[in-house]
Amino acid sequence: MSGKALSVKSFPERLAEAIGIKGGPVVVGLDPRPELFPDDVLAEGRRMHDDPRQAVSAAVAAFNRRIIDAICDIAVAVKPQLAFYEQLGWPGMRALEETIDYAQQKGLLVIADGKRNDIGSTAAAYARAYLGGVGQGDEKKGGDAGGGGAYTGLESGLEADALTVNPYFGSDGMAPFLDACRERGKGLFVLVRTSNPSGAELQHLPVGDETAGEGRGVGQKRDTVAHRVADLIVKWNEGMPTYDGFGPVGAVVGATAPAQAMSLRRRMPGVTFLVPGYGAQGAGATDAKAAFDHRGKGALVNSARGVLYAWLSENPGEPGTMADYAEAARRAALRMRDELAAVLD
Amino acid sequence: MSGKALSVKSFPERLAEAIGIKGGPVVVGLDPRPELFPDDVLAEGRRMHDDPRQAVSAAVAAFNRRIIDAICDIAVAVKPQLAFYEQLGWPGMRALEETIDYAQQKGLLVIADGKRNDIGSTAAAYARAYLGGVGQGDEKKGGDAGGGGAYTGLESGLEADALTVNPYFGSDGMAPFLDACRERGKGLFVLVRTSNPSGAELQHLPVGDETAGEGRGVGQKRDTVAHRVADLIVKWNEGMPTYDGFGPVGAVVGATAPAQAMSLRRRMPGVTFLVPGYGAQGAGATDAKAAFDHRGKGALVNSARGVLYAWLSENPGEPGTMADYAEAARRAALRMRDELAAVLD
Repeated sequence: MSGKALSVKSFPERLAEAIGIKGGPVVVGLDPRPELFPDDVLAEGRRMHDDPRQAVSAAVAAFNRRIIDAICDIAVAVKPQLAFYEQLGWPGMRALEETIDYAQQKGLLVIADGKRNDIGSTAAAYARAYLGGVGQGDEKKGGDAGGGGAYTGLESGLEADALTVNPYFGSDGMAPFLDACRERGKGLFVLVRTSNPSGAELQHLPVGDETAGEGRGVGQKRDTVAHRVADLIVKWNEGMPTYDGFGPVGAVVGATAPAQAMSLRRRMPGVTFLVPGYGAQGAGATDAKAAFDHRGKGALVNSARGVLYAWLSENPGEPGTMADYAEAARRAALRMRDELAAVLD
Repeated sequence: MSGKALSVKSFPERLAEAIGIKGGPVVVGLDPRPELFPDDVLAEGRRMHDDPRQAVSAAVAAFNRRIIDAICDIAVAVKPQLAFYEQLGWPGMRALEETIDYAQQKGLLVIADGKRNDIGSTAAAYARAYLGGVGQGDEKKGGDAGGGGAYTGLESGLEADALTVNPYFGSDGMAPFLDACRERGKGLFVLVRTSNPSGAELQHLPVGDETAGEGRGVGQKRDTVAHRVADLIVKWNEGMPTYDGFGPVGAVVGATAPAQAMSLRRRMPGVTFLVPGYGAQGAGATDAKAAFDHRGKGALVNSARGVLYAWLSENPGEPGTMADYAEAARRAALRMRDELAAVLD
């Protein structure tokens, strides 16, 4: 759509550089669950604010800062799960902004995990909300004449490096996000196969006719909805800047179903997989391996609970301090990096 | 899942009462586009805050209050589109909270239009974020022991009356939202067939085998993904409180494809349809009629741009004041109610 030259590095290039520097594809999910926080960080929040939501949100921001300090030389990216910030209302969204800024200062990429999407004009608002000030002129094209003389441009919300998106709206809902990839070096991860037990209900419905199709699993005669989403992702990457064969539009593929991950890997050779479910959701390094290509490239692996609350699983019943949590998180991230390196060698 | 008696009115009952009082199923979409706002309301925001995002967000809250005042005796509900608040960062989310509180004070139901969903534990956070303090004990069940001794419960984000949700995760992503329907009288609208041009890419993929199936369109030999989502919605309503035959789990079905709406109506007889796309997206009352049952019941019709910015389309090139916008919005909402009444009689 745009002939503009990319003046910033593409997302796949930034990702490849980060993986080189950090020594592996570890992503730490920042899913703040205040009910699992150490007492000292909650007390810190209460000293700052009387209002309970603001106090908890300040604790969230402080907790994230300490975790980021502990893992920033190990992880490629952090992935804040937006729901955990939204549940605290606007103070939670302010904590999210602070977290994103801090992570980027510390050399981490940020994947905003919101699974957002909608029709085109609303998708443009989501792109502005999470990938910075893109598409600011788009609204005027809509045909509504006049108005807004005193208004000189939308302020953007947050500026993460990538966003997770839901494919249910099809291609036109993707356009504003694709513009952000093309023009501003952003990345996307589109839901393909999720890691939850009932993900298969829609994602594995057989579609189309029984024909020989490439990149399906053994014995699969028909495509599934997930395969068709995979084909759309390949299409959305067309004409995009690539690095080492990878485009900026990635795929969310759960590690809990390795056979399906391999089938989808064949179907989407130039697509980076974001693999949730490592650790707490039951998948290990061997499962995650299915998401990588034969060179051991092309996937990011996320662990949230397994890193953030490693202290609790290692020391059941012992309260622990923020320092304990941070040290345990660092050990868990290092362990995860080593486990992945071992299977990818 | 819960044997608890419903101590509040069910969402379908509250909806039926509101339609009776207001004289029709009009929903006004609160999609604030500051670039289309009158100058006086933007100036009002700037007088309150130096920070640009806070100034625009204050203008958004003020704009919404005036629109709500103008339409609260005509509309059943308002439907804030969350993306337009999120794009302003945390000040936008604060404006959203103020808007929801004000609308409920003025006797309007609020449908938070966020198309949210995720795996179970994250979906629980979204339910807390937008449907109030449900599922607060759920996190502890996850098996992470200890921690959080100083923390006595999550504060909830917003408390709307209903939320739009995306079905891609299947049933387990729905569980926390269904709990909110069952236990707290909330409603849901699940995406089935969206009003955007490429909505068909996934939603109309043919699934399963060629068999005779009830409730498909004429000549359709196979179900589509949308039909299967429809079947899930029927299942999710099982065991829920109903009113006049309708359950709390509704469906988003675009008015831009009336033949498909009729096919889906047959498939989901006890399901309330939320019909976007009235007015600005090109659908009129005759198109919307397809979403109602033979009694003229079972659908809500949403218009956003066609009401909020009616002044601009009626007076191209004339700036207008907030009072002009509010009066034009009231006229547009009345016209919409009359148009719908005419085709439903």
